[in-house]
Amino acid sequence: MAAPTGDIGLIGLAVMGQNLILNMNDHGFTVVAYNRTTSKVDAFLANEAKGTKVQGAHSMEELVAKLKKPRRVMMLVKAGTAVDDFINALVPLLEKGDIIIDGGNSEYQDTDRRSKALEAKGILYVGCGVSGGEDGARYGPSLMPGGNPAAWPALKPIFQSIAAKVGSDPCCDWVGEQGAGHFVKMVHNGIEYGDMQLICEAYHLMTSTLGMSHDEMSKVFADWNKGELDSFLIEITTDILKFKDTDNSPLVEKIKDNAGQKGTGKWTAISALDYGVPVTLIGESVFSRCLSSLFDERQKASQVLTGPSPDFKGDKKEFLENIRQALYASKIVSYAQGFMLMRQAAEIHGWKLNYGGIALMWRGGCIIRSVFLGNIKSAFEKNPSLSNLLLDPFFKDAILNCQTSWRKVVSQSALLGIPTPAFGTALSFYDGYRSKRLPANLLQAQRDYFGAHTYELLNAPGKFVHTNWTGHGGNVSATTYDA
Amino acid sequence: MAAPTGDIGLIGLAVMGQNLILNMNDHGFTVVAYNRTTSKVDAFLANEAKGTKVQGAHSMEELVAKLKKPRRVMMLVKAGTAVDDFINALVPLLEKGDIIIDGGNSEYQDTDRRSKALEAKGILYVGCGVSGGEDGARYGPSLMPGGNPAAWPALKPIFQSIAAKVGSDPCCDWVGEQGAGHFVKMVHNGIEYGDMQLICEAYHLMTSTLGMSHDEMSKVFADWNKGELDSFLIEITTDILKFKDTDNSPLVEKIKDNAGQKGTGKWTAISALDYGVPVTLIGESVFSRCLSSLFDERQKASQVLTGPSPDFKGDKKEFLENIRQALYASKIVSYAQGFMLMRQAAEIHGWKLNYGGIALMWRGGCIIRSVFLGNIKSAFEKNPSLSNLLLDPFFKDAILNCQTSWRKVVSQSALLGIPTPAFGTALSFYDGYRSKRLPANLLQAQRDYFGAHTYELLNAPGKFVHTNWTGHGGNVSATTYDA
Repeated sequence: MAAPTGDIGLIGLAVMGQNLILNMNDHGFTVVAYNRTTSKVDAFLANEAKGTKVQGAHSMEELVAKLKKPRRVMMLVKAGTAVDDFINALVPLLEKGDIIIDGGNSEYQDTDRRSKALEAKGILYVGCGVSGGEDGARYGPSLMPGGNPAAWPALKPIFQSIAAKVGSDPCCDWVGEQGAGHFVKMVHNGIEYGDMQLICEAYHLMTSTLGMSHDEMSKVFADWNKGELDSFLIEITTDILKFKDTDNSPLVEKIKDNAGQKGTGKWTAISALDYGVPVTLIGESVFSRCLSSLFDERQKASQVLTGPSPDFKGDKKEFLENIRQALYASKIVSYAQGFMLMRQAAEIHGWKLNYGGIALMWRGGCIIRSVFLGNIKSAFEKNPSLSNLLLDPFFKDAILNCQTSWRKVVSQSALLGIPTPAFGTALSFYDGYRSKRLPANLLQAQRDYFGAHTYELLNAPGKFVHTNWTGHGGNVSATTYDA
Repeated sequence: MAAPTGDIGLIGLAVMGQNLILNMNDHGFTVVAYNRTTSKVDAFLANEAKGTKVQGAHSMEELVAKLKKPRRVMMLVKAGTAVDDFINALVPLLEKGDIIIDGGNSEYQDTDRRSKALEAKGILYVGCGVSGGEDGARYGPSLMPGGNPAAWPALKPIFQSIAAKVGSDPCCDWVGEQGAGHFVKMVHNGIEYGDMQLICEAYHLMTSTLGMSHDEMSKVFADWNKGELDSFLIEITTDILKFKDTDNSPLVEKIKDNAGQKGTGKWTAISALDYGVPVTLIGESVFSRCLSSLFDERQKASQVLTGPSPDFKGDKKEFLENIRQALYASKIVSYAQGFMLMRQAAEIHGWKLNYGGIALMWRGGCIIRSVFLGNIKSAFEKNPSLSNLLLDPFFKDAILNCQTSWRKVVSQSALLGIPTPAFGTALSFYDGYRSKRLPANLLQAQRDYFGAHTYELLNAPGKFVHTNWTGHGGNVSATTYDA
């Protein structure tokens, strides 16, 4: 038998898997393709992979036998039990030091569990977030690998060559231990929810308060895309707004305003609640989708519940620039919150995350790619221990420059009756975060009043006391205690 | 052996359990008290229960033997495995038709599971939310029982006599099947988080923008407590604000603004995300506590991040009344969201919830007790199939009357730099809920653009189409399909 020549095996020949294989092949790697329904292997070799170096395998044994050591096997299969099934089938065929990579949309807790279980067996497990959709997989995705760090030297040459590039920098680097790669991918998706919501709020204000035409709006987004908001999502919004249906009217207005969700935004918000990190903008973005999906209820309510006239009476050009600045400032807050969540998760799980590297991974190849992420990367390069993006001089000044406009937009939206939950919660967060004093002292007093929960004294940190607030002893039955 | 005379058994002699026993005893019921550490039984009989009809038991067997049939056994033990342990110990001692009640703070999913498992064994299981703290347990709690409906006739006389009363109405009624009682208790706690946050925002505006003294603020809350905001939490805020420390300065200002959470608010927000219901006000309230707890970070940020002057320049008396109306309108939205969540959970779990009954259960005895809950009860009495509180004529008019003031407060807070996340999200929700059209059509177009997720047409419901948005075929690799 000839010595094996496969650089990497790939399980799962749906479109993402196929495109990653072709991408790897383009970069000179020999890929061994396998699929549970093996007719797909033959069809792939006879069609999409015709004329490439791609090899086929019709069994897991054949797949493993065709790989050089240490063996690298990547799965692109449906998240859930399919991943566990393939792992269980692979492990008896592998040797210590071989590598299994999950490139699917697994929940990070599952990746955590699998990584730990396989480490005990000497198999190096990697959960890798893959972003950029089918196009990204084929021509350059954003890749976020995490898991057993011992796997990275063997994966780096393949992953960094197939990843998207910004200049010569690949949008792929080692993220961290265990489920860190899938966690960071989840936060990426949550931030994507936030970015989309912010653009929707800007569009809502343009159309409802400024009465702009779709061609006008498209031009404005094209303009915005030349400056600090330069990003893939602003770019596609330009295309969408100017797109005409066959009757020459804007197609976007024929689309039902009823947004679905695949779950990763929701998971991000739930993680934020679980870890106690105020990721309010993603939370509001998920809830905004939920509210949009109450389509029939809204049609009914719109007949019953009234509000003010939405027409903006002031200088429209100035207000449009205010909207741009509100979007930019809110976006800064959203990313600051996302990085806060990653920092907290890293602390809890003991991951050593490279925040500048994460910004670079998102800089290209994925849905949230933008010039802005280059600024984030610079911020962490200048100060790797930066505790919060809002404290970085560049972003601090950016918000200072925007804040008057931002406040006017939130203020006007409230008066004109246009919902801007993401702009608004971002501003509340900014004002709360910069508050030396918040009203939670009253809240602590309330909890002590009705539940004897005790409170901490400002001038005696760590000292918890209970007060008989009614001032006439005997009425409070709760025990007085120093905890 | 004499015939057993015990009406109900109670396991767990911490203060909540003891107080419920004494409350039941006051109402003429014979309670059998048991505790795993049996010395607690003796101590209780010799002290708190001295001179009552309370009987003690020193084993589970003795407890069961002393009860009339059908036996009623209530547990007030720590949520989690302790509940399962006691159930496992009780079941072999009980007969078909006997009743086990969990009066602790169990997660509703656990109660769901236990209820179904015991139904298969012929034991009637009830999970009962108990609110009102130690005082409530002793003199009249709010009780929210749910589980096997066959248990209710045997529990009703005891539970309704010990519950708080509003007029002659007991704040206890049957909630619904399986985990419904504990679910409703969880939502109660979430709403409590929201109510407290709203009061904190009002206080924050009074002190920071209006510069009011604590005695002035206390008088304002006392005033508010005479009208539509009449409630326990407003009442205790009155007491707290006027409470002076030994140096005659307001004690509340010496308390660290760093709010903890016991988890039920967080669970409510997570349920809202899981069930896709936009319960934004509770979500923001939980996140506000999280932000407050970043105390050290805020001290640092307050040195670096600047904002506008918080001084309000207009008519202060008018602004104060605006704040009251903002609080009232936001509170209406919060309860509307809470009831939306219960409705959605009921639909998913097949519970038949009595919404007016739930309002009555919360009307007295518990932390969120208020006149307002009487209005909610009336709304559901007038129209038991009311789809949303905001559509009830009373609440619709209440918001209409408040909305100009509410909008001014949200607007002013943004301009003055005071965070009002709950006031703001409530207003955004109201404006979104009454919107025939939200900008989610753009969002759907974006998802279709980058991920070929397809979108639904407004004029062809159920028809999902994909568009090649770039308008020059071949650039979009995603498959075009009609799903």
